[in-house]
Amino acid sequence: MSPSAGASAPGDDVHLLEHATGVRTPIHTGFLNVVRDQVRLPDGQVATREFILHAGAVAVVPLLDDGRLAMVRQYRYPVGKVLLEFPAGRRDPGESHWQTARRELLEETGFVAREWAFGLEIHNAAAYSDESIWIWFARGLVAGPQKLDSDEFVEVVHHSEAEVDAMAANDQLPDVKTLVALLHLQRWRQGARRLDWQAAPA
Amino acid sequence: MSPSAGASAPGDDVHLLEHATGVRTPIHTGFLNVVRDQVRLPDGQVATREFILHAGAVAVVPLLDDGRLAMVRQYRYPVGKVLLEFPAGRRDPGESHWQTARRELLEETGFVAREWAFGLEIHNAAAYSDESIWIWFARGLVAGPQKLDSDEFVEVVHHSEAEVDAMAANDQLPDVKTLVALLHLQRWRQGARRLDWQAAPA
Repeated sequence: MSPSAGASAPGDDVHLLEHATGVRTPIHTGFLNVVRDQVRLPDGQVATREFILHAGAVAVVPLLDDGRLAMVRQYRYPVGKVLLEFPAGRRDPGESHWQTARRELLEETGFVAREWAFGLEIHNAAAYSDESIWIWFARGLVAGPQKLDSDEFVEVVHHSEAEVDAMAANDQLPDVKTLVALLHLQRWRQGARRLDWQAAPA
Repeated sequence: MSPSAGASAPGDDVHLLEHATGVRTPIHTGFLNVVRDQVRLPDGQVATREFILHAGAVAVVPLLDDGRLAMVRQYRYPVGKVLLEFPAGRRDPGESHWQTARRELLEETGFVAREWAFGLEIHNAAAYSDESIWIWFARGLVAGPQKLDSDEFVEVVHHSEAEVDAMAANDQLPDVKTLVALLHLQRWRQGARRLDWQAAPA
């Protein structure tokens, strides 16, 4: 489908590319790291692009032996709502995204998984953040205690796929990574997507 | 499914809620507006939550009379990729999200739509942004010229739903609002979701 494919090689798209000039202004470093880059546009003009430098995040779809899904409910202060989500979190320095997935699954739900499969990578805010979310699937789950930070209040719930699908259909699942992960899970069940399951390293 | 529904009334979830104490620190105001709020956690501890104040955004699924979808390809500097997306953009002050949808469809693609239907509201970065993305559907499209800002380079392409579905299945569609909008479109075609079409005001 090239040259109009979804995420093409830069060579096809010189008429769209923006090039960093090398001038980057650090704006703020805290929980969020904001920078402003000077860029050269396709027509030679100079403009600025302000965005968040993000370490990337993972979401994990934990498949319980009884067929249900382990999910978390937590208050998302910026949007003022308790959201139902798949366990997720930001990558720590030096972690591979699988290591983040394993850590976040353990911290938020207490589960250790015997098998893992990578699903897909998504961009949730490409206009203003370099964040990737890597979606993983986990099964062969062994229960244990949550290991939350002192400022985290996360409730673990178990739902059937039919229940989660019904919530999506009733607009009770506004979290995008959770919607996209659910879609991927359903497509895998239907045979339309492949998951390459691998045993967790000891 | 209450109390474990996807997005519940706060009354059910006092054990999860965080309350603003009223102390808000403005961090940065530019293309991105960053604030840090002091919050009281469910156990009485005080913590901070740093996030982006966002005006909200729309995405529009433009259904062409020949059955294809109008989409846009643009370079997303933060992620360093040309992404295939549904037309989208940020709300201007005073706009309803439908007004934003109409304006962004016109600016990015040149289309004016005779009929509109609201799809759903999603949160794409609830951990660090109050952004909502409202997904709209448009049909009865009348073509005209794009009206881009001078620093916008946006290419309009037309794809069949089957082509877009194949790109999603091949991981060529990493933009979350586009994936979620495609899912909603497919569920509407299957009769699993309703779209309440309304004629555009004159």
